Amino acid sequence: MMILTIERNSRVPAYKQICEQVVGLVESAALAPGDHLPPTRVLARSIGVHRSTVLHAYGELWALGYLESRPGSYSTVRRPAPTTAATGQSRGTGVIDWAAVSNPTVREECEDAVRQAHEPARPEVIDLGRLSADRRLTPTDDLRRCLRAAMLEEGRDLLDYGDPAGYPPLREAIARRMRVHGVAIAADEVIITAGAQQALDLVLRLMARPGDRIATESPTYGAALSLFRFHALQPIDIRMRPDGLDLDALGAALDAQRPVLLYTVPNFHNPTGITTSQAHRERLLALCESRRVPVVEDGFEEEMKYFGKAVLPIKAMDTQGSVIYVGTFSKVVFPGLRIGWIAAPRECVRRMVAIQGITCLSGNVLAQAVAARFCESGSYEAHLRRIHKVYRRRMQAMLAGLAEHMPPGVEWTRPAGGYTLWLGVGKSRLDERTLFMRLLQDGVSVAPGSLFVRTPPAQPSFRLSIACASEEEIAEGCRRLGRSLSSVRRRT
Amino acid sequence: MMILTIERNSRVPAYKQICEQVVGLVESAALAPGDHLPPTRVLARSIGVHRSTVLHAYGELWALGYLESRPGSYSTVRRPAPTTAATGQSRGTGVIDWAAVSNPTVREECEDAVRQAHEPARPEVIDLGRLSADRRLTPTDDLRRCLRAAMLEEGRDLLDYGDPAGYPPLREAIARRMRVHGVAIAADEVIITAGAQQALDLVLRLMARPGDRIATESPTYGAALSLFRFHALQPIDIRMRPDGLDLDALGAALDAQRPVLLYTVPNFHNPTGITTSQAHRERLLALCESRRVPVVEDGFEEEMKYFGKAVLPIKAMDTQGSVIYVGTFSKVVFPGLRIGWIAAPRECVRRMVAIQGITCLSGNVLAQAVAARFCESGSYEAHLRRIHKVYRRRMQAMLAGLAEHMPPGVEWTRPAGGYTLWLGVGKSRLDERTLFMRLLQDGVSVAPGSLFVRTPPAQPSFRLSIACASEEEIAEGCRRLGRSLSSVRRRT
Repeated sequence: MMILTIERNSRVPAYKQICEQVVGLVESAALAPGDHLPPTRVLARSIGVHRSTVLHAYGELWALGYLESRPGSYSTVRRPAPTTAATGQSRGTGVIDWAAVSNPTVREECEDAVRQAHEPARPEVIDLGRLSADRRLTPTDDLRRCLRAAMLEEGRDLLDYGDPAGYPPLREAIARRMRVHGVAIAADEVIITAGAQQALDLVLRLMARPGDRIATESPTYGAALSLFRFHALQPIDIRMRPDGLDLDALGAALDAQRPVLLYTVPNFHNPTGITTSQAHRERLLALCESRRVPVVEDGFEEEMKYFGKAVLPIKAMDTQGSVIYVGTFSKVVFPGLRIGWIAAPRECVRRMVAIQGITCLSGNVLAQAVAARFCESGSYEAHLRRIHKVYRRRMQAMLAGLAEHMPPGVEWTRPAGGYTLWLGVGKSRLDERTLFMRLLQDGVSVAPGSLFVRTPPAQPSFRLSIACASEEEIAEGCRRLGRSLSSVRRRT
Repeated sequence: MMILTIERNSRVPAYKQICEQVVGLVESAALAPGDHLPPTRVLARSIGVHRSTVLHAYGELWALGYLESRPGSYSTVRRPAPTTAATGQSRGTGVIDWAAVSNPTVREECEDAVRQAHEPARPEVIDLGRLSADRRLTPTDDLRRCLRAAMLEEGRDLLDYGDPAGYPPLREAIARRMRVHGVAIAADEVIITAGAQQALDLVLRLMARPGDRIATESPTYGAALSLFRFHALQPIDIRMRPDGLDLDALGAALDAQRPVLLYTVPNFHNPTGITTSQAHRERLLALCESRRVPVVEDGFEEEMKYFGKAVLPIKAMDTQGSVIYVGTFSKVVFPGLRIGWIAAPRECVRRMVAIQGITCLSGNVLAQAVAARFCESGSYEAHLRRIHKVYRRRMQAMLAGLAEHMPPGVEWTRPAGGYTLWLGVGKSRLDERTLFMRLLQDGVSVAPGSLFVRTPPAQPSFRLSIACASEEEIAEGCRRLGRSLSSVRRRT
């Protein structure tokens, strides 16, 4: 019979007290190898603790090598083997150097991720930095209705593994939506992904090998640059001009450097807000087609056209099957559901489905079914109409505010939709980081331009976003921005 | 003024009729470059079709190069550029050879995936092949309650981007659950993944480079082998003995071949059903620790112990921080929500969180919140108790059925839990595939042993599963299996 006493007021947790006493009993030979410990239920009852506490204690004892447990029998006392005993106390020192065994790209990225982690913004700071749909506009009730209906009608099916290509009605709904944008595709030319980021990752896993070159706009979406680095790719920076990426430079790069693909954001380009014309898209596609270089078109804000007429996606004129289109719901509604997609030639989709099957078996079926219902019920289009109204006014407020408050020499883009515009400060004695900190001090948060390039530019630039600020906040933000930039200029 | 007529009874879709007529008007010079097309709303009303039909038609025209659209203005007629015109009709031929540009591992895997696609089973066939929680046991109502509560209390938060490490209360709940299994970890030593498969993929993305060696049991989980192949790794097969992987062979392999990690399934091993003893685990860990080789412990069925006492995970005695534990809900409840996790040293978790951030930004917050509530509300433990009862009886039925019906020379394992056992047929004139087809003809479906190895073994073997068959079906399945194997033996 083993006698244990638990000191209730002790700062040592109960499980640890049990451990220490049992170890003491074994070390003092009061318990011998082969002795049984009481079943967890029995011990728990006898010393008045929860059974999970005893389980935890037995687990620790086991980890320390003092216990053996065999299927269908009691836990039996044992003496720890020398190796474990010798090292048993040094928890936390570690035999593996995780930095050293990690993929070198991860090492670098990990440090980057830490460096880039946002500090929580002070409430008095106006946020013109964040590019993420405004939570205040989330159609929570509509979504709840879709969830309820989906669970009632298909509950069990939605909780089981699904097709790695995605929930079929959602593939249909997306194909239909793409057709509205002029892209004539069928459901089997669509694969559902866990957001646009995972879609890009999937494209790279299909096509890119370490060291491959990849043509991309510069500046461009910062998280795409991270992804390229993680895949150990070599970006070829094609500079952005006011009408889109420099096509002459693209042609030259395609010929001289043979990239495996071109990554481009033709609509409401992140970060500059530039939308290219049809003629630009046509020439871009012809250039890539003639060199047999696939175009990866990131249509992350396709739906965010609220001024004038939409230019259709490059994918809409992909008669040669060389465009991989990446789409997402996340920039208009519920990013937390992680729904993105790829529209691509069947041969390409088939291979990406195989990769999805190998790397994650199935997507989140419930989320996909809810998204499908959200589209089918008309809630999606109603939501778009609603946010278009809001963002159109916000963008007008931003353009008016900049016109009113910017000092001379500051330049900015005039987007036809989307959330972001690009602000060039011109000559400045303060470097970008210092200027960024100054703006923050003065109560306005923006995104430093260097997040979107590989080599920091000579003059500071910033991405401004209307995503998460109201019209009033935008107006006030522009005022602060103007005051701050003017004061810097005066002093320098 | 442009006049179009839509033939309502035509088999040509309305959008196509619009296209063809506009192309005709341009080609016959009735419409000249620079002419405006009517706004989509106006045209839709005037010819009596839905606006999306007109949008679709304009999209096609744009794709063919006959239309230009500019922000804020009408769609304008244009002549297609020669490049596009010359190739415009050959949709589907394609300038990209997707097979050739794809990563070579994907090429192979894609064909594999196609090859392995299951034919739909005939209803009269008893399914002793599938390893997936029985849908008939899904606790749909409990889950619905959790969903409803989560949406009511946290709706908006759950629809926005989340922490790439996972929803904090779920990390807590999992750390608590791991402590019940004797693994003393905190929430920040847990990262949530989209199922165990994505967890394994994440581990490999962190640690393995193409060509690296990886030690693994043989046979082992087939989808892990696919993942190794996809990552271009070289598995070192360590053969399974009745008490677990051959530790002498492991020691020799660690010394001679320097794998980057050991992948092991110590509980209810897939496919054999073998559970290793504490002594085995201790020696395995000591072997790996002394060579500084991380252990990846796949605890995919940790919770499925329903006979006797559980042996604690290897992770429970990881005093040196060298074990990466992979867990999942999917083998006990709602695989469609895709919730798995990794429990590992902080330094390792931190790096994996960075990779998750880079490759997918955030997990599915709603699904993670629902899983957390499912655990916190006690539904998870209640569900486990319920399915343990069911599967204990099923496994008893399976073991009794095999004892009664197997002809001499057939051998099988006797699992302490989980879903699967391993059947060695012994000498057989029929090869495994032929035997598999024969069994299928005779009304019982099993998993061919060759799915779990890289080199097909000399004698046929099969994985049997109790996951999706009732006790009655299992009894009848064993009868059919016995009859079929006996008849084959008599004839040969």
